[in-house]
Amino acid sequence: MSAQAHVETLRWEGQCPGYVSMVEQTLLPGQHVQLEVRTVPEMVNAIYRLAVRGAPAIGVAAAFGVLLGVQDQGALNREEFQKHTLLVCDELATARPTAVNLFWALNRMRQRLALDFEQGLDVAGLIAGLFEEAHEIFTSDRATCRRMGEIGAELIADGQSLLTHCNAGALATAGMGTALAPMYVAAEQGKQLHVYADETRPLLQGARITAWELMQAGIPVTLITDSMAARVMQEGKVDAVFVGSDRIAANGDVCNKIGTYGVALSAQAHGIPFYVVAPLSTIDPSLSDGSKIPIEERPAAEITEGLGRLTAPAGVDTYNPAFDVTPARLVTGLITEVGLLTAPDAASIQSALTRA
Amino acid sequence: MSAQAHVETLRWEGQCPGYVSMVEQTLLPGQHVQLEVRTVPEMVNAIYRLAVRGAPAIGVAAAFGVLLGVQDQGALNREEFQKHTLLVCDELATARPTAVNLFWALNRMRQRLALDFEQGLDVAGLIAGLFEEAHEIFTSDRATCRRMGEIGAELIADGQSLLTHCNAGALATAGMGTALAPMYVAAEQGKQLHVYADETRPLLQGARITAWELMQAGIPVTLITDSMAARVMQEGKVDAVFVGSDRIAANGDVCNKIGTYGVALSAQAHGIPFYVVAPLSTIDPSLSDGSKIPIEERPAAEITEGLGRLTAPAGVDTYNPAFDVTPARLVTGLITEVGLLTAPDAASIQSALTRA
Repeated sequence: MSAQAHVETLRWEGQCPGYVSMVEQTLLPGQHVQLEVRTVPEMVNAIYRLAVRGAPAIGVAAAFGVLLGVQDQGALNREEFQKHTLLVCDELATARPTAVNLFWALNRMRQRLALDFEQGLDVAGLIAGLFEEAHEIFTSDRATCRRMGEIGAELIADGQSLLTHCNAGALATAGMGTALAPMYVAAEQGKQLHVYADETRPLLQGARITAWELMQAGIPVTLITDSMAARVMQEGKVDAVFVGSDRIAANGDVCNKIGTYGVALSAQAHGIPFYVVAPLSTIDPSLSDGSKIPIEERPAAEITEGLGRLTAPAGVDTYNPAFDVTPARLVTGLITEVGLLTAPDAASIQSALTRA
Repeated sequence: MSAQAHVETLRWEGQCPGYVSMVEQTLLPGQHVQLEVRTVPEMVNAIYRLAVRGAPAIGVAAAFGVLLGVQDQGALNREEFQKHTLLVCDELATARPTAVNLFWALNRMRQRLALDFEQGLDVAGLIAGLFEEAHEIFTSDRATCRRMGEIGAELIADGQSLLTHCNAGALATAGMGTALAPMYVAAEQGKQLHVYADETRPLLQGARITAWELMQAGIPVTLITDSMAARVMQEGKVDAVFVGSDRIAANGDVCNKIGTYGVALSAQAHGIPFYVVAPLSTIDPSLSDGSKIPIEERPAAEITEGLGRLTAPAGVDTYNPAFDVTPARLVTGLITEVGLLTAPDAASIQSALTRA
């Protein structure tokens, strides 16, 4: 089977005025519907409903959301336009209160507006500047993904079998993803691959999203439960593990979706390389090590009835941490857009950050 | 909270004639219904539907099933009675063609019949002999569970937190289970316990059955996904792991529900004792090591739609091994009815078998 291009999670259609076309992720994997988003409230709703998800993708969606709100406001004067744009940003910021990339992207849009405004541009010029900024965020995300993919693909040999956990793929970014980017590039290079996708309880991002996007791209994928990862490694079926990250501490400890740590322990026990693929923006140098990373605890219902019906005793106590921390010593390599950090530690991470 | 007695999975009610009362396990955890089984076809159906499950419990159910078929046949002559009883055994043997304890229990009933028949007993005597044999199977299973529970409880200190995987509890036996038996005995002894129960994908025996029976017994239990076991160990929340086994090789390698091996690797990484609780009948001395244990592969639908609706792309490839093998070197101790085998190996297992 020859590999196809990865899914395009979202893109801007047309010029100005235009609209956003995105994969409606809430319907996956049952239906692949392309959602057209034409207004700010529609974009707020799309982000809130998780029609678009994944930190980098949410940032791009927010930036495009600003364009939806300002593209037809050419009749306002400069002051009115500035005020209107800031209100649009505020409205978009309400979509998901904890999504850090949402605020980061909206801040970039606000800063661009402030800069162009100070330089005396007219409203047409301000709109053009915002278009440029949003597309720069989009393009930069795609370029970062591809660069990580190219670096990671060098670690993948023809015929290898890889394992991943959760979804750090194209559907979490505007580009080819983080953990899955090396697989897409390796497939482009003509390497034959096979991927084991952990289903990733409780919310099944692996089953619902990773399996779907790899199938769409023509990369052979086998779905397993999280509890089978150690077994497939024991059977000699895994050559390397690639995962993404939500936050990386200054010493290289990696916070990622719950279950990643168990996968890392199993990989170490079998001598299998464990790679983390994440842009430098994931590194939080203010946290000295992983113990400082706050772990979000989520509702019991995700475990007891996350799949549409009650599958545990009513009222059972649960513990539902959404993330875990993999110590840096279990990380064979950290793949960033500035290169591969082998056995990452505080020194190599500090050095990588200065290269950004 | 003081601990109550464990659930009674099945028991014989009345004398002769009597009937079998069992927990209808297919309705757990939503409803706790006590099923009354009064005929052989009803017992075949109960075993087939998994109303009763777990190898030891199925054996007892089959033996009681023979009683249901013979208890009112006092009017037959000896030869007619013998022929009729063998037909009843054949009918019960069809309930689950791969359940080894089913055949073991039916063979014990057939052998008892043959012995008593040779000794010239009349039909009333033959019926009485079969009653004795079935109740001996029942009593012996309960005694074995309790003995393992007593041995295992010595390993549990007051205030400890334990972790288990799948269901090797009262609901899998006629007694207090295997892996859960030490917890029931420790609770009886007044020790305060807390149990983390892995939900155990794909079929959720931990969520549906283990959590339920521990709640029934008043033992505090917290349900987690399988992927969280390593995290709770990392957080220092687990003092020991107790699991059951489906088959143990001559060298001590342990076959158990898929996911057990990953739990064992995590336990080792955190220096947490990993105990296997299993009667000597689980040991298969004909298999030199775990690599010889055949691993049943089950249907994709258990992963993709095991929870009532499709949660993965239609047609996705899956791999669904029902069991895995934990190497003996990861087993801190094997708890059997003849004692604790610390760091079990071929020599200590051989020695234990001779003590049976």
